[in-house]
Amino acid sequence: MITAFVLLDVQTDQVPEVAEALCDVEGVVEVYSVTGRYDLICKVKVARNEDLADVVTGRVGKIPGVAGSETVIAFRSYSPRVLDAGFALGQDPV
Amino acid sequence: MITAFVLLDVQTDQVPEVAEALCDVEGVVEVYSVTGRYDLICKVKVARNEDLADVVTGRVGKIPGVAGSETVIAFRSYSPRVLDAGFALGQDPV
Amino acid sequence: MITAFVLLDVQTDQVPEVAEALCDVEGVVEVYSVTGRYDLICKVKVARNEDLADVVTGRVGKIPGVAGSETVIAFRSYSPRVLDAGFALGQDPV
Amino acid sequence: MITAFVLLDVQTDQVPEVAEALCDVEGVVEVYSVTGRYDLICKVKVARNEDLADVVTGRVGKIPGVAGSETVIAFRSYSPRVLDAGFALGQDPV
Amino acid sequence: MITAFVLLDVQTDQVPEVAEALCDVEGVVEVYSVTGRYDLICKVKVARNEDLADVVTGRVGKIPGVAGSETVIAFRSYSPRVLDAGFALGQDPV
Amino acid sequence: MITAFVLLDVQTDQVPEVAEALCDVEGVVEVYSVTGRYDLICKVKVARNEDLADVVTGRVGKIPGVAGSETVIAFRSYSPRVLDAGFALGQDPV
Amino acid sequence: MITAFVLLDVQTDQVPEVAEALCDVEGVVEVYSVTGRYDLICKVKVARNEDLADVVTGRVGKIPGVAGSETVIAFRSYSPRVLDAGFALGQDPV
Amino acid sequence: MITAFVLLDVQTDQVPEVAEALCDVEGVVEVYSVTGRYDLICKVKVARNEDLADVVTGRVGKIPGVAGSETVIAFRSYSPRVLDAGFALGQDPV
Amino acid sequence: MITAFVLLDVQTDQVPEVAEALCDVEGVVEVYSVTGRYDLICKVKVARNEDLADVVTGRVGKIPGVAGSETVIAFRSYSPRVLDAGFALGQDPV
Amino acid sequence: MITAFVLLDVQTDQVPEVAEALCDVEGVVEVYSVTGRYDLICKVKVARNEDLADVVTGRVGKIPGVAGSETVIAFRSYSPRVLDAGFALGQDPV
Repeated sequence: MITAFVLLDVQTDQVPEVAEALCDVEGVVEVYSVTGRYDLICKVKVARNEDLADVVTGRVGKIPGVAGSETVIAFRSYSPRVLDAGFALGQDPV
Repeated sequence: MITAFVLLDVQTDQVPEVAEALCDVEGVVEVYSVTGRYDLICKVKVARNEDLADVVTGRVGKIPGVAGSETVIAFRSYSPRVLDAGFALGQDPV
Repeated sequence: MITAFVLLDVQTDQVPEVAEALCDVEGVVEVYSVTGRYDLICKVKVARNEDLADVVTGRVGKIPGVAGSETVIAFRSYSPRVLDAGFALGQDPV
Repeated sequence: MITAFVLLDVQTDQVPEVAEALCDVEGVVEVYSVTGRYDLICKVKVARNEDLADVVTGRVGKIPGVAGSETVIAFRSYSPRVLDAGFALGQDPV
Repeated sequence: MITAFVLLDVQTDQVPEVAEALCDVEGVVEVYSVTGRYDLICKVKVARNEDLADVVTGRVGKIPGVAGSETVIAFRSYSPRVLDAGFALGQDPV
Repeated sequence: MITAFVLLDVQTDQVPEVAEALCDVEGVVEVYSVTGRYDLICKVKVARNEDLADVVTGRVGKIPGVAGSETVIAFRSYSPRVLDAGFALGQDPV
Repeated sequence: MITAFVLLDVQTDQVPEVAEALCDVEGVVEVYSVTGRYDLICKVKVARNEDLADVVTGRVGKIPGVAGSETVIAFRSYSPRVLDAGFALGQDPV
Repeated sequence: MITAFVLLDVQTDQVPEVAEALCDVEGVVEVYSVTGRYDLICKVKVARNEDLADVVTGRVGKIPGVAGSETVIAFRSYSPRVLDAGFALGQDPV
Repeated sequence: MITAFVLLDVQTDQVPEVAEALCDVEGVVEVYSVTGRYDLICKVKVARNEDLADVVTGRVGKIPGVAGSETVIAFRSYSPRVLDAGFALGQDPV
Repeated sequence: MITAFVLLDVQTDQVPEVAEALCDVEGVVEVYSVTGRYDLICKVKVARNEDLADVVTGRVGKIPGVAGSETVIAFRSYSPRVLDAGFALGQDPV
């Protein structure tokens, strides 16, 4: 599986609406509204880079209110050796 | 739990080494080397914002080779309604 | 309590109006028009990060005239040991 | 009194140390380590702009580890009309 | 007196018009069209920072054609010891 | 006479020292430490653009602690029609 | 032959459409939708720099949806000595 | 095969040397010194994203003189329908 | 004579048209469409800085399609000692 | 002939020295110290893009004090129809 993060710049008054729309896009597995220079970050998991094109330029880019997006693909994932004692698996992501 | 993403700018010749060091930091639950303007993205899960200070300024910032970092905290997480058919749960994150 | 600062970029001819509107948003405890690259800075105090989502994306983002905003959350607060002699507590914030 | 915010860019491995040093600077009344593009934000209260020069260029700028700073002065403060029910006055700033 | 400089970004076809309008704003004491990344620079002199709010957000910001502005306040003024021999006082500023 | 402004980026711990050094440069007629993205702004008055080369690249650029500078030349100066009532001529520039 | 790359910033909801339009422009030999700060990258091969003007400002710039473009010309091409064993020539470019 | 472009920022006096070193990296199929804000652009072809990590962070990042790099992966390649008459296939890339 | 370069940002579909319009502006002596972050560069020669105001803000800024411009004035010109053997004087500038 | 402009960022205390060194580089036909975000601009004229590589990466990039450079190549030159009456041909370039 290919993991990518889409860093989204959204029209200031449309953030919750765009977040909800992202949840209906196949391949999007996590969506967060965030602090900082981006408005939303979503994690995407697909089989091939080609599928990312459908998700990002075909679907995410077409959601009204999305002003810009920057996709970063994970080259490699590294497995943390120290799971935080307080991190109960399966808990609500936030 | 609080979810945050740390977007890391790393000395060009130190990326794999910093990624490995991040895996030993308590609270870091995912680490990726990525395309684009950042070198590494790691997901952090902690109980309180205060704990993030320990993770980010106390531990991550002290790793040799880290040139800069920008932490974004998830305000809110939204739950995708469309799990990608091809996304087999429990698979290696990447 | 969680402390955050929202750094606001406002339509040039709407600064005083947006400042007044911010004063009606629950959770906003201080509002300043400022010099420099931002137009307004407001301090927000809420119980949980989740509440920030309501304040920032739910309320502040919807105020007409807000062109962009960047929220920074305080990881940790440090207590100054040297209160400025000339700083009379309880005085008008500015 | 004049209120200003100093947005600090700090050497990645020196954030807690610089924060502590700021607490010993007369005129600095609040210090936070923060998410986002800055590392620290401190609020300064002084009698005259001239005094800010002493605080910012005379003291803050001389703290080892400070890579850059940007000071914004509050033109005007606006008084919020809606104190957050959950905001208990006098509590620890964070 | 407080000295500030307002660095103005103006709609490309409105520069002379905005310059003239600035000349009618109380507190503005010098106005220049300039080379470089800004279009106009004006010097403002007022009694208190609070007055700057009226000048900058109340008046300058409302001039049609102003796309953005960044105000910098002089902390401290330093007095040059070497007046340029060729600098005849009282001459047209440019 | 030609009027120019030099916007200076100075090593964080050298601001007052560089300001004093600027005061010894022929052609520099005003020097301010300022808020915002620049550290110092100085006004220069010379007879010809060519003289600016001596002032900026020949003298200012050689002052230890100057990290970068950006010179803007005034194309045209516009004369304010509304001298601020409170602006007493001849007063200390700040 | 002259090789150039055009780095394209495209309206978020027009990426696939602009990519298809690029394929009809003489001189464009490769077109990719890409991750990162650009939306599309296309390679152009022409006989003279002058021909690039026709391709870039005459054709590419006129495609609806193109928000901005930055052309880089190859000064010199260097020939890799290590063809990746796994790189089967003539395969579909992606 | 996966196609990616690495946009390289190189120490000003090391451009030709870094270009030659890139030619010895397996997976790098084209290398150009270019005009504009980047110094070198190289095209990389590999079987999996994971292999890109070896090429970019494992090899390219370790070349002395590389100051920074930004990798963009091709989501999708589009096939031009209009081969430039003057573009003789199989010619030297530049 | 004063030499200045105007670096122009032009609406993507208007580059050739703006270039032609520049050719009708008195004081403009060379006009190029260029690669890189700007779209056009023109060289201007006038007697006084004041005349630049007429050329840049009075004429160039008013040309439809000009999105932004940045004027740089030559402080000093240095005379190359090595005229390129291949540089035949009087040839078409490009 | 190919015309290019090299926009140079130079160590603050090395501007005149780098300008003189540029005058000894074959292909460099004009050199100016300038206002604004660049320190020097030089015009280069060569027969082929390939020759630019020698001039820019082979010679200019190797001059001590050059911190960065950005080369823009002229796609097309447009011939002004209105020579400024005051522009006497053959005069010293500045």
